[in-house]
Amino acid sequence: MDSSRRLVILGSTGSIGTSALEVVDHLAPRFEVVGLVAGRRVELLAQQVTRYRPRIVACGDEDGARRLRALLDGGPVRPRVVWGERGAIEAVREGEPDVVLAAIVGAAGLAPTLAAVETGATVGLANKEALVVAGRLMVERAAASGATLLPVDSEHNAIHQCLRSGRREEVRRLVLTASGGPFRGRAREELAGVSVAEALDHPTWSMGDKITIDSATLMNKGLEVIEAHFLFAADVGEIDVLVHPQSIVHSLVEFRDGSVIAQLGVPDMRHPIQYALTWPDRVAGCCPRLDLAELGTLTFEQPDLEAFPCLALAYEALRLGGDAPARLNAANEVAVEAFLDGRIGFLDIPRVIERTLARTGPGRGEDLDALRDADRQARRVARSLVSGGPTA
Amino acid sequence: MDSSRRLVILGSTGSIGTSALEVVDHLAPRFEVVGLVAGRRVELLAQQVTRYRPRIVACGDEDGARRLRALLDGGPVRPRVVWGERGAIEAVREGEPDVVLAAIVGAAGLAPTLAAVETGATVGLANKEALVVAGRLMVERAAASGATLLPVDSEHNAIHQCLRSGRREEVRRLVLTASGGPFRGRAREELAGVSVAEALDHPTWSMGDKITIDSATLMNKGLEVIEAHFLFAADVGEIDVLVHPQSIVHSLVEFRDGSVIAQLGVPDMRHPIQYALTWPDRVAGCCPRLDLAELGTLTFEQPDLEAFPCLALAYEALRLGGDAPARLNAANEVAVEAFLDGRIGFLDIPRVIERTLARTGPGRGEDLDALRDADRQARRVARSLVSGGPTA
Repeated sequence: MDSSRRLVILGSTGSIGTSALEVVDHLAPRFEVVGLVAGRRVELLAQQVTRYRPRIVACGDEDGARRLRALLDGGPVRPRVVWGERGAIEAVREGEPDVVLAAIVGAAGLAPTLAAVETGATVGLANKEALVVAGRLMVERAAASGATLLPVDSEHNAIHQCLRSGRREEVRRLVLTASGGPFRGRAREELAGVSVAEALDHPTWSMGDKITIDSATLMNKGLEVIEAHFLFAADVGEIDVLVHPQSIVHSLVEFRDGSVIAQLGVPDMRHPIQYALTWPDRVAGCCPRLDLAELGTLTFEQPDLEAFPCLALAYEALRLGGDAPARLNAANEVAVEAFLDGRIGFLDIPRVIERTLARTGPGRGEDLDALRDADRQARRVARSLVSGGPTA
Repeated sequence: MDSSRRLVILGSTGSIGTSALEVVDHLAPRFEVVGLVAGRRVELLAQQVTRYRPRIVACGDEDGARRLRALLDGGPVRPRVVWGERGAIEAVREGEPDVVLAAIVGAAGLAPTLAAVETGATVGLANKEALVVAGRLMVERAAASGATLLPVDSEHNAIHQCLRSGRREEVRRLVLTASGGPFRGRAREELAGVSVAEALDHPTWSMGDKITIDSATLMNKGLEVIEAHFLFAADVGEIDVLVHPQSIVHSLVEFRDGSVIAQLGVPDMRHPIQYALTWPDRVAGCCPRLDLAELGTLTFEQPDLEAFPCLALAYEALRLGGDAPARLNAANEVAVEAFLDGRIGFLDIPRVIERTLARTGPGRGEDLDALRDADRQARRVARSLVSGGPTA
């Protein structure tokens, strides 16, 4: 074992963050937690601070920082407490981390994740927006700083593992698997009237509402196609999606000699988190073992792009390039929120996205400010489309 | 592409050898065929000599060499023609190969394969006996000469590919897949009366009679467990067998972090042959592409050790160590031959092997002569058991 690694967790009180701390517990004393960044769950953050003793902690806002200081007052652990986006960035830099787990959800995670990449640390990427909205920027800054980007979602993490079986130029195709969501097998016309409750009933993973709807529309997989493009420098034609309802094969790589390498495992977020935190080592951890004989059967099918046009739209955004993925992502967030609120139907989600893409951009570039502008513009257009009400 | 590799094929007229020459055709001018070694199929060998122009050719016996010289007489290609085991060894050495494909079937392949290993070349191992009978010897000589051993059967080749995704000490378990043979799912009592014709009806691969029966008894998989032990320095407890009737997942490796890496592909012997010949490169070749969505379903189950005791016997031979695998292999050859001749029943095969193991050895060591003695002794004992006639 190498010496203890200094770790900063961006988003320590979320589901990825708390799973990461479980991994840290199992692998003690492999890690020294030097920085924690969280949003509104200040009580949990205070508990984490007491337990892991970071040098610096960032809260979502000034009020949170005040509450955290009060909770820690008189206790044995007195880290520096900062707040906001600037605080999060400070936490990354001051911790001088070997590894950063970038797990702040949504656009709020962008700037701190970029700051992490710029330190040259190993960055476990669990923030989808980092690559979907600002993929080129992240990859360019990583190349400049020497940072290693390690994907933490199970599909890209699987691809990362499979790629080790050959050289990059020997790869023919990346194949991301998809559970297919709760509406797998339904035809387009059967999807018009699905309810929010039906869409939230995911067969395999228990996740937040937004991501569960993305899984039902297959936009989740579309965003992953975009991530894979940047993460692995793969052309749009080199990335396929394969529906695999059991979620055991986490993804596959086809090499040019016809050999296909797959990564399999019990669905458990702690596995890819641990892989990212301990890379390039593989260590015994807390993940359950896979028993294929007990599972018995694995099935595979092509995705239905007619019933799930969001996947095709993501490919389209990737072909358009530039800020199109950022605009796709923004339009999708607005549309999903409107669907969850009962303001539009399920099939309106791709309609809103398609029209938003057509009516916006391309913007003025790919630096973080320009991408944020493109995001805001797309949200405005998508909201005006949504306020038209249900069209399905 | 690196410069042309000098290739010697031991067993060029067999099914592996001819497949290897198909690979060579597809990948020209990547290889220069410098030596060919074959047994009795002299006409085919003459055609190969005319086409690939090796410097040296070895036939099975003196008569074959005479016939080959006559067939080549007056033609444009005049290689040195030698014969017998000594000739095969000469062909390996004189060719100064970068790569040797060791694909002579049975005990006859042992000495030439060992000679190949001693040259320090990359050796594609397709001769089962090399590792089952003389595994320790092969591995020790490879370590001494610097030879790289690359398995050519699909299971070990798959393991080799999967192992690239981590370090050797990070491996928890090797999992060899098995089609399960024609009698998969049958209980022990249903197997007593099976006919030779039934046993020869293999569901996936078309192979020779001996290996097809080995597949029906699962001894084939047992021998592969022994091979895996030597090839990958894996303890007997680290090697598992998983029945997978579709033969698409060629084998798997479980790492200690719980991650399972699998290699998949269309069943086609040319793939592992090409992998071994071009290693460490992966190149586009002649193998068909895998379409998992079209296949649809993959299934997995535990092997039934009660119905198929040959697999348990192979593990037992590995636990006994020394020359026990050589004696197991010899007894199995005698028993399978007797079954194919209708002299014993299907369930007598493991009985003959078990009794032979109990009544022989351990012999006087693990050099090639001692192992050959152990082989002969086991054959004698097995034959006397077989001559007792059907006991099932």
